[in-house]
Amino acid sequence: GVAMIDHHRELRQGAPEVIFGEGKSAAQLQAIVARMQQRGGNILATRLDLDKGRALLSDFPEGQFDPEARTFALIQKPVNQIGRGTIAVVSAGTSDLPVAREAAVTARLLGHQVEELVDVGVAGLHRLFARADVLRRAAVIIVVAGMEGALPSVVGGLVAAPVIAVPTSVGYGAAFGGVAALLGMLNSCAGGVTVVNIDNGFGAAYAAHRINQGETP
Amino acid sequence: GVAMIDHHRELRQGAPEVIFGEGKSAAQLQAIVARMQQRGGNILATRLDLDKGRALLSDFPEGQFDPEARTFALIQKPVNQIGRGTIAVVSAGTSDLPVAREAAVTARLLGHQVEELVDVGVAGLHRLFARADVLRRAAVIIVVAGMEGALPSVVGGLVAAPVIAVPTSVGYGAAFGGVAALLGMLNSCAGGVTVVNIDNGFGAAYAAHRINQGETP
Amino acid sequence: GVAMIDHHRELRQGAPEVIFGEGKSAAQLQAIVARMQQRGGNILATRLDLDKGRALLSDFPEGQFDPEARTFALIQKPVNQIGRGTIAVVSAGTSDLPVAREAAVTARLLGHQVEELVDVGVAGLHRLFARADVLRRAAVIIVVAGMEGALPSVVGGLVAAPVIAVPTSVGYGAAFGGVAALLGMLNSCAGGVTVVNIDNGFGAAYAAHRINQGETP
Amino acid sequence: GVAMIDHHRELRQGAPEVIFGEGKSAAQLQAIVARMQQRGGNILATRLDLDKGRALLSDFPEGQFDPEARTFALIQKPVNQIGRGTIAVVSAGTSDLPVAREAAVTARLLGHQVEELVDVGVAGLHRLFARADVLRRAAVIIVVAGMEGALPSVVGGLVAAPVIAVPTSVGYGAAFGGVAALLGMLNSCAGGVTVVNIDNGFGAAYAAHRINQGETP
Amino acid sequence: GVAMIDHHRELRQGAPEVIFGEGKSAAQLQAIVARMQQRGGNILATRLDLDKGRALLSDFPEGQFDPEARTFALIQKPVNQIGRGTIAVVSAGTSDLPVAREAAVTARLLGHQVEELVDVGVAGLHRLFARADVLRRAAVIIVVAGMEGALPSVVGGLVAAPVIAVPTSVGYGAAFGGVAALLGMLNSCAGGVTVVNIDNGFGAAYAAHRINQGETP
Amino acid sequence: GVAMIDHHRELRQGAPEVIFGEGKSAAQLQAIVARMQQRGGNILATRLDLDKGRALLSDFPEGQFDPEARTFALIQKPVNQIGRGTIAVVSAGTSDLPVAREAAVTARLLGHQVEELVDVGVAGLHRLFARADVLRRAAVIIVVAGMEGALPSVVGGLVAAPVIAVPTSVGYGAAFGGVAALLGMLNSCAGGVTVVNIDNGFGAAYAAHRINQGETP
Amino acid sequence: GVAMIDHHRELRQGAPEVIFGEGKSAAQLQAIVARMQQRGGNILATRLDLDKGRALLSDFPEGQFDPEARTFALIQKPVNQIGRGTIAVVSAGTSDLPVAREAAVTARLLGHQVEELVDVGVAGLHRLFARADVLRRAAVIIVVAGMEGALPSVVGGLVAAPVIAVPTSVGYGAAFGGVAALLGMLNSCAGGVTVVNIDNGFGAAYAAHRINQGETP
Amino acid sequence: GVAMIDHHRELRQGAPEVIFGEGKSAAQLQAIVARMQQRGGNILATRLDLDKGRALLSDFPEGQFDPEARTFALIQKPVNQIGRGTIAVVSAGTSDLPVAREAAVTARLLGHQVEELVDVGVAGLHRLFARADVLRRAAVIIVVAGMEGALPSVVGGLVAAPVIAVPTSVGYGAAFGGVAALLGMLNSCAGGVTVVNIDNGFGAAYAAHRINQGETP
Ligand SMILES: Nc1ncnc2c1ncn2[C@@H]1O[C@H](COP(=O)(O)O)[C@@H](O)[C@H]1O
Ligand SMILES: Nc1ncnc2c1ncn2[C@@H]1O[C@H](COP(=O)(O)O)[C@@H](O)[C@H]1O
Ligand SMILES: Nc1ncnc2c1ncn2[C@@H]1O[C@H](COP(=O)(O)O)[C@@H](O)[C@H]1O
Ligand SMILES: Nc1ncnc2c1ncn2[C@@H]1O[C@H](COP(=O)(O)O)[C@@H](O)[C@H]1O
Ligand SMILES: [Mg+2]
Ligand SMILES: [Mg+2]
Ligand SMILES: [Mg+2]
Ligand SMILES: [Mg+2]
Ligand SMILES: [Mg+2]
Ligand SMILES: [Mg+2]
Ligand SMILES: [Mg+2]
Ligand SMILES: [Mg+2]
Repeated sequence: GVAMIDHHRELRQGAPEVIFGEGKSAAQLQAIVARMQQRGGNILATRLDLDKGRALLSDFPEGQFDPEARTFALIQKPVNQIGRGTIAVVSAGTSDLPVAREAAVTARLLGHQVEELVDVGVAGLHRLFARADVLRRAAVIIVVAGMEGALPSVVGGLVAAPVIAVPTSVGYGAAFGGVAALLGMLNSCAGGVTVVNIDNGFGAAYAAHRINQGETP
Repeated sequence: GVAMIDHHRELRQGAPEVIFGEGKSAAQLQAIVARMQQRGGNILATRLDLDKGRALLSDFPEGQFDPEARTFALIQKPVNQIGRGTIAVVSAGTSDLPVAREAAVTARLLGHQVEELVDVGVAGLHRLFARADVLRRAAVIIVVAGMEGALPSVVGGLVAAPVIAVPTSVGYGAAFGGVAALLGMLNSCAGGVTVVNIDNGFGAAYAAHRINQGETP
Repeated sequence: GVAMIDHHRELRQGAPEVIFGEGKSAAQLQAIVARMQQRGGNILATRLDLDKGRALLSDFPEGQFDPEARTFALIQKPVNQIGRGTIAVVSAGTSDLPVAREAAVTARLLGHQVEELVDVGVAGLHRLFARADVLRRAAVIIVVAGMEGALPSVVGGLVAAPVIAVPTSVGYGAAFGGVAALLGMLNSCAGGVTVVNIDNGFGAAYAAHRINQGETP
Repeated sequence: GVAMIDHHRELRQGAPEVIFGEGKSAAQLQAIVARMQQRGGNILATRLDLDKGRALLSDFPEGQFDPEARTFALIQKPVNQIGRGTIAVVSAGTSDLPVAREAAVTARLLGHQVEELVDVGVAGLHRLFARADVLRRAAVIIVVAGMEGALPSVVGGLVAAPVIAVPTSVGYGAAFGGVAALLGMLNSCAGGVTVVNIDNGFGAAYAAHRINQGETP
Repeated sequence: GVAMIDHHRELRQGAPEVIFGEGKSAAQLQAIVARMQQRGGNILATRLDLDKGRALLSDFPEGQFDPEARTFALIQKPVNQIGRGTIAVVSAGTSDLPVAREAAVTARLLGHQVEELVDVGVAGLHRLFARADVLRRAAVIIVVAGMEGALPSVVGGLVAAPVIAVPTSVGYGAAFGGVAALLGMLNSCAGGVTVVNIDNGFGAAYAAHRINQGETP
Repeated sequence: GVAMIDHHRELRQGAPEVIFGEGKSAAQLQAIVARMQQRGGNILATRLDLDKGRALLSDFPEGQFDPEARTFALIQKPVNQIGRGTIAVVSAGTSDLPVAREAAVTARLLGHQVEELVDVGVAGLHRLFARADVLRRAAVIIVVAGMEGALPSVVGGLVAAPVIAVPTSVGYGAAFGGVAALLGMLNSCAGGVTVVNIDNGFGAAYAAHRINQGETP
Repeated sequence: GVAMIDHHRELRQGAPEVIFGEGKSAAQLQAIVARMQQRGGNILATRLDLDKGRALLSDFPEGQFDPEARTFALIQKPVNQIGRGTIAVVSAGTSDLPVAREAAVTARLLGHQVEELVDVGVAGLHRLFARADVLRRAAVIIVVAGMEGALPSVVGGLVAAPVIAVPTSVGYGAAFGGVAALLGMLNSCAGGVTVVNIDNGFGAAYAAHRINQGETP
Repeated sequence: GVAMIDHHRELRQGAPEVIFGEGKSAAQLQAIVARMQQRGGNILATRLDLDKGRALLSDFPEGQFDPEARTFALIQKPVNQIGRGTIAVVSAGTSDLPVAREAAVTARLLGHQVEELVDVGVAGLHRLFARADVLRRAAVIIVVAGMEGALPSVVGGLVAAPVIAVPTSVGYGAAFGGVAALLGMLNSCAGGVTVVNIDNGFGAAYAAHRINQGETP
C-alpha cells in the first residue's frame, strides 16, 4: 500500500486526515478514498483538477466534486455543527475565489457556519465597509488576497476577532506567484494577523476550526 | 508631534497600541510614552536595546524593562485576567528564548495565564513528550523555533488546539536569518498551523490574545 | 578630479544634479560642493550621516544640515516657487519619517509647496480619512511606507491625482529591508500607482517635480 | 454574482474600473462585461488570450479585440480628448511590443493622444536620438524595456518630462522574467524615474493618465 | 559521438557511470545505452519520462523500465551483494514516492539490501515509532521528504547511523519547488545529517553506496 | 514596421545585428529576414524552435536551419576568415550541447576557426587532460557547463588564454535553471574568467569574436 | 534553568550533545558547561568569539580554547580512538581554514584520526594531485571550499570514499555568503557527494563520525 | 604553513598568483608576502583595509599601499610592458572609483598601459561621447558601474573592442549590493559583453590581461 493513513488524527485533533490531491495519480486517489470509506468517516480531498475530480466521481457517485474549489467530499455521516460563531471568508478580487471556496468548503465540512464576502479589495474600501456587519459577527475571519495582500491589515485593524490571512498566487510579474502577498501579510501592521501558505485555503479553514471548535453555537 | 497614536484601537480590538521600539530614538520613545501615560492606560514597548530600555527607566522608574525580552512595560491600572485557558509558549532551543519571552511578556500584559516550555527541540523529542500535559491543557499554543523550524509540525500533530508558529532568526548560513524556519512553518504538514513574521513574539501573543479573549477563565 | 559634474542637467531636466552622499568620503563631498558653489546655483546633498553633515557645515556654515532627513542644502539664489498645486507627503508610521523628510526637503528646494501627513497607516484608517482634505487638494501625492506597504493602494483608491509610492526599509524579518513593501507597491491593486527604490525619498520628490513643474501655482 | 464592481471609481479617479482578464474564465468575463455594459460606460479588459478575446467578440461583436495588446474594448460613448500634451510610448526592442501596445490602447481609451517609438534600445542610441523630437514634445513618457532595462535612464537624462518605466519579461536566463529590468529601472541613475510592475503596460498608461488629465490639449 | 563516457569510473569509484536522462533525446539515450552495452557492464539511466522509457524498452526489451522511479536498468552481469548492513529508505508522504523509489532502485542495482518505509511524516509520529526496528538495523538511512522537510531531524535524533536527507519538490506556494525542504534539512538541529539536491534519489543512493560498500553483509 | 534594424552596427562593431528569435512570431521573423536580405549581408537568427525554423526555411530555402543549435543562417556573401587563432568550444556534459553548438555556429559565421570538445566534465578530469592540446592552441576558449559550473575554473587554471564561461540551464532542483552554474562561474577562483548570461552561446561567441578579430590567421 | 540538556543523546547517537555558542551569552555558556561538567563527560562548544572563549577559560582553565576553530573543549575522560580509517579534511583556500579546523577539532574529540590538506583549490590542481595518497587512504573525506565550491566534484571524481562537502562563506559579491558554493556542491556532477550547511565544519565532522564509527582502526 | 602558493601559475598563465586579502589576518598576510618575496617576483595583494595595508607597509616599507584601490604591491623586478594596445578603465560614478582603481593598479602591474575615464554615467551621455577617442583607441575596455549597470551596454554599442563589465555594490535598496548591476550587465543588449563578479576589479584586469597579452605595443 502506498499510504499509511493517520486514523488516530481525528482523536488527537478533532478532524479527519484530509487527502492532498496534487502529485497523486487518479488511481492512487481512488485507492486511498476507497480505503478510508471503509472506516465510515467523512472524507475530503483537495487540489484536484477536473480529471481527478471526474475519476473520483465515477468511483464514488455519491460524492461532491466542486470544480471551483477543486475539492471532492464524501459525506458518510452527518456533520456535527460546532463553533462559537460564524467563520467569515473574505476575498479581495474575483480571481481569488478558488482559494476562498476551498476554505469555505473545508470549514463547512468540519461543521462550521460560513459567511462569504467577495471582491472587496482595498482599492475601493467602501465595498468592505458596507459589509462590516459580517466582519463584526464572525468568531474567526479568513482573509484571502493576492497581488499586494493588503486586505488583512485593513480587516485586522477593524475588528478584535482572530484574522487568518491567505495569500494567493493571483497576479503577475513582481507578484512572484504569491510571494508579494505572503510578505505583505507577514509584515501586517495590524497586530496579531497570522498567515498560512500561498493558496492554502484548506489550511486557513483548518486553523479556523482549531480556534472555533469546542462549543456549539 | 511625530506620532498619531491610535487611541481608538483598544475599543476596536480589545488591546492598546503597542510601541514598536526599533528605528525610534530614545528621545522619540520617551515622548511617546509620556503622551500615552497621560491617558492612564497600560503601555508596552517592544524591540528595545539596553540603551533605550535604560532611557525609558530613567524617565519612568516605575516601569519594568526586561532585557531578555527587550520590552518595557508601564502598568498604570490592574491587568484584567481573561481567557478560555492558558497560553503555552514552547521554544525549541535556548537561543530562541528572547523571542519566546517577548511573547510571554506581551500575553501576560494582555491578561492571559502563560506557561513556558524551553529547549524541547525535535532532535530529542522525549523532552517534549515528557511535558505533554502543558500542551494538552493550553487553549492556544505558541511555538518558537529557529533553524529548520520543525517543532510546530510535531506539536500541531499532537493536539487539537490552535498553534501559532514563530520562526526565529537563530541559525547561520542557509538559515538565512530565519527564512528556513519561516518556510518550514508555512509548509507544515500538520494542518492548521498559522505563522507570524520572523522573531515576532509580540505578534504571536497578540494573535493568541485575539483567540483566547472574551471569557474569564 | 574625481567627479565630472553634469552641469547641463539643469537645462535638460529643469533641476540641478544632486549629490549622492553615500560611499563618498567627507573630503570628497567638501571638494564637490566647493566646485559646484562657484557656479552659483543651489546645491543639495543626500544620505549624509552626522559626521559628513558636520564636515560640510564646518566648510559651508551658511548651509543647512537636516539630521533627520540626512540632507545638506546650500541656497545661493532664491528658490522659484513653481507647481500646479501642493505636493502631499504621507507616511504610514513614525519610523518612516526620515524618508518622508528627505522627500519634503527635496521638493521644497525644487520650488514646490509641501504638506506632510504622518503616522496614518492602514491599521487605523480613520486617521487617514480625517485628513482626506490634504489628499484632495494635492497635485501629486508621495506615499511613504515600510512593512507591508499597503498605504499607497488605499490612497490611490481615494483620489485621482498621481501617486508615487516609496517603500522604506522599516521592519524586520520577512520585511527583508524593504522588499516586502516594494513588492506590495509594485502589485498595488489601485491602478496607476508608480514606485521608486526603497528609501528613495529624493527620487520620489524628483519625480513629483517632473510632474508638478511648468506652472506657477 | 462573482464580482462587486467598483462603479464609484470613475467619480473618485476619473477613469472606469478596468477588467483584469488573467485568471478569469471566458464565461466570467462575458458576465462581467454584460453587467458593465448596462451602465453605458466604456469598457476595457486586459491580459486576454486569443480564446477569451474571441469569446468576448462573439458576445459583443461591436467591441474591438487587439490580439497584440491582448485587450478588448467596448466603446459605448465618445472618448473625451483630454491631456496637457501627448503621451509618448517608447519601447526598446521588437519583443517588447505587446506591453507597449497595452499601454497605448489604454491611454487612448482614457482620452489621450499617443505617439509610439519602437525598437530604439541603448545598444544603438542613434536610433533614439533621431527621434528626440517625439520625446521633447511629450507631456509624459512611458518607456518599455526588457533585458537590462537601461532605456529609461537614457530617456530620463535627456528630458524634463515625467518618465514611467515598464520592465518587460522579455529575455531569458538571468533576466529572471523581468526582474533584471525591474531592478535596473528602480536603480536608475536618472533622478525621478518611476516604475510599475513587470509587463504592466496598463498600469503605466493609468499613471500617465493621472498625470496628464485635467486639461484639454 | 555526443558522449565521452567515463569508463574508468567503475575502477576509481566502485560504480559505473549512470546516464542522466533529462535533456537528452530518446535517440541520444538509445545510442549511449547501445555503446555502453558493448562493454558488458550493468547500465542505469534515470529521470526518464514514459516516452523515453518505452523507446529504450523497444531497443532493449531485456531491460527494466520502472515508471514510478523513472529509471531504466539493463542487467548484463549478476549484481554483487555488498554492504555492512541494509540501507533504509524512509519517505514522509505518498507524494514523495517517486524520489524514494529512484533511491531504492539505484541502491539495489549497486548491490545493497534495501528496506522501504512509506508515509511516516512528522504530523503523526506514532507511524514512524512503530517501525523503529527498521531504522535501528540499518547501516545507512535515506530520508525523503518534501514540504517542511522535518523528518530527517527526527530520524537523526533517534539513531546513530548516517542519515542522508533528500528534499523533494512536493508541495506548493512557499515550498518553492523543494527549497523549503532543502533549507530545513541543511539546518537540521540533529547533528550530522547530510543533504543532496532536491529530488536527487539517485545521488542519495550513490552516497549510501560510498558509505556502505567494502564489506559483504 | 515592427523593427528598426541597426544597420550601422557592422561598421561600429565589425559584426551584423543578429535576430533574437524568442518572443517573435514566425511572421515577424520572416518579415525581418526579408528586409535584411535586401541589404545583401549575412543573416543569423537564434533561439528558434522547430516551427519557426521551418517557417524561415520555407521562405528562404537557401538558408540553413540547425535544429540542435536552434539557429537559422542565410549566407549571401562569403564569410571572411579572421582571427589570431582558433576558438575552442568546450562543454561539460552531453546535455550542454545545444548551447555549445549555438556558440560554434555563431563563431563560424563571424569568420573564426572553431574546435569543439564535448563531455569533459570535472567528475572525470582525465577526459579533459587527454585533449589539453586543443586548449593550448586556442586563442580564446568558450567553456559551457551546467549543474555546478566548475569546468571554467579548471580550464582557467590550465591556460593563459582568455576564458569565456557560459552557464547552462542543465540540471534540476537547486540548479535553479542555471543560477548555480552562473554563480559558480562568477566566483571562479581562476583569475580572469569572464561570464555571459545563462544559455547565451551566442553572446559568448560574439565576445570571442571581439577578442579574436583584427588579424587573419 | 535555560537549557534542558539532552543527556540521552550519547546513548542514542554515540556522541554527546555539543553546545552551539552563537546567540548565547558568556554567562549562559558558563552555566551550561558547569552543569554538563558534573556528569563527567567530554564537552565541546563551537562558534565562540574571543570574549566567550576567554570567559570559558577563566571558569574552566583546564579546557582548551582554539581561537582559529572558535571551539572550546573540556576533556574529562580519555577519548576512545575509533574508526575504520582516517578522516581527511581538505580545504580549497587559506581563508577556508577556520571551518576546516572546526571540523578537525570536532572529529578528533569524537575519537577519529584526522589528516589535513590545505590550499589545494581547483585553479591549481597539481597541488591536490600531489597529495592524492592522503585522499586514497581516507575512510571519509570532508572537503571545505568557498567561492565556486568546485573542489568536492573533483575529489568525488577521484575516489570511492564518502565525500562530505562543506561550503564556506568565503568570497564576496555573487558568492552571497556561501550560497554560490552551497549550490555548486548540491549540483555536483560527481555522484554521491553530500552537503552540510554553510560554514558547518562541526556538522561535517559529526556526519563523518556517524559513517566512520563502530570499529577500532 | 597555512598557504600552498601556486608558484607554477606564472608559467601556466603568464601572471603570478595574487593574494586575496579579505578574511586573512595581517599576520597571515605578512607571512605569505615574506615567503613569496624570497622567490624574487612581483607581488600583489588585494582587498586590504587600512590596518592590513599599514601592517604590510611596516614589514615591507619598499612596497606601495594604495588606500583607494585597497591594494599592496611589492615590485622586485621591472614590469615588462606588453599588450596590443591600451586598456581603458571607464567608471560610471564617483562612488565606483575604488573598484576602477583596483582594476587599473592590477592591469599596470601586469604590464599594460591604462587610460581612466571617470564619472561618465548614462544619465548624462554627452560626458561619455566627449571622450569617445579613449574608447576607440583601446584594445580592451573595462566598464565599472553600480546601480542599474547600464554603461557597458552603451559602450558595447559604440565600439568593436572586447568589453568587460564590472558591477559594483554602489547603491542601496533594490540595488541589493550589486545584484541589480550584475543582472543588468548579464542581460546587456549589446552583444558580446562579458561580466565578472561584483566589485571584482582585479578579475576584470586579469581578464583584460589574458586578452591583451602576447604582443609588445
Ligand atoms: N515587536 C513588534 N513587531 C511587530 N509589530 C509591532 C511590534 N511592536 C509593536 N508593533 C506594532 O507597531 C505598531 C506601532 O508602530 P509605530 O507607530 O511605528 O510605533 C503598533 O500597531 C503595533 O501593533
Ligand atoms: N493589465 C493589468 N495589470 C494590472 N492591473 C490591472 C490590469 N487590468 C486591470 N487591472 C486592475 O484590476 C482591477 C480589477 O480586478 P478584478 O476585480 O480581479 O477584475 C482593476 O482595479 C484594474 O485597476
Ligand atoms: N538522477 C540524477 N541526478 C543527478 N545526477 C545524475 C542522475 N543520473 C545520473 N547522474 C549523473 O550524471 C552523469 C552523467 O551525465 P551525462 O554525461 O549528461 O549523461 C553521471 O556522472 C551521473 O553521476
Ligand atoms: N580581489 C580579488 N577578487 C577575486 N579573486 C582574487 C582577488 N585577489 C586575488 N584573487 C584570487 O585569489 C586567489 C588566492 O586566494 P588565496 O589562496 O585565498 O590567497 C588567487 O588565485 C587570485 O587569483
Ligand atoms: Mg474587482
Ligand atoms: Mg538545546
Ligand atoms: Mg504608529
Ligand atoms: Mg532591435
Ligand atoms: Mg500521508
Ligand atoms: Mg557525461
Ligand atoms: Mg591559495
Ligand atoms: Mg556623477
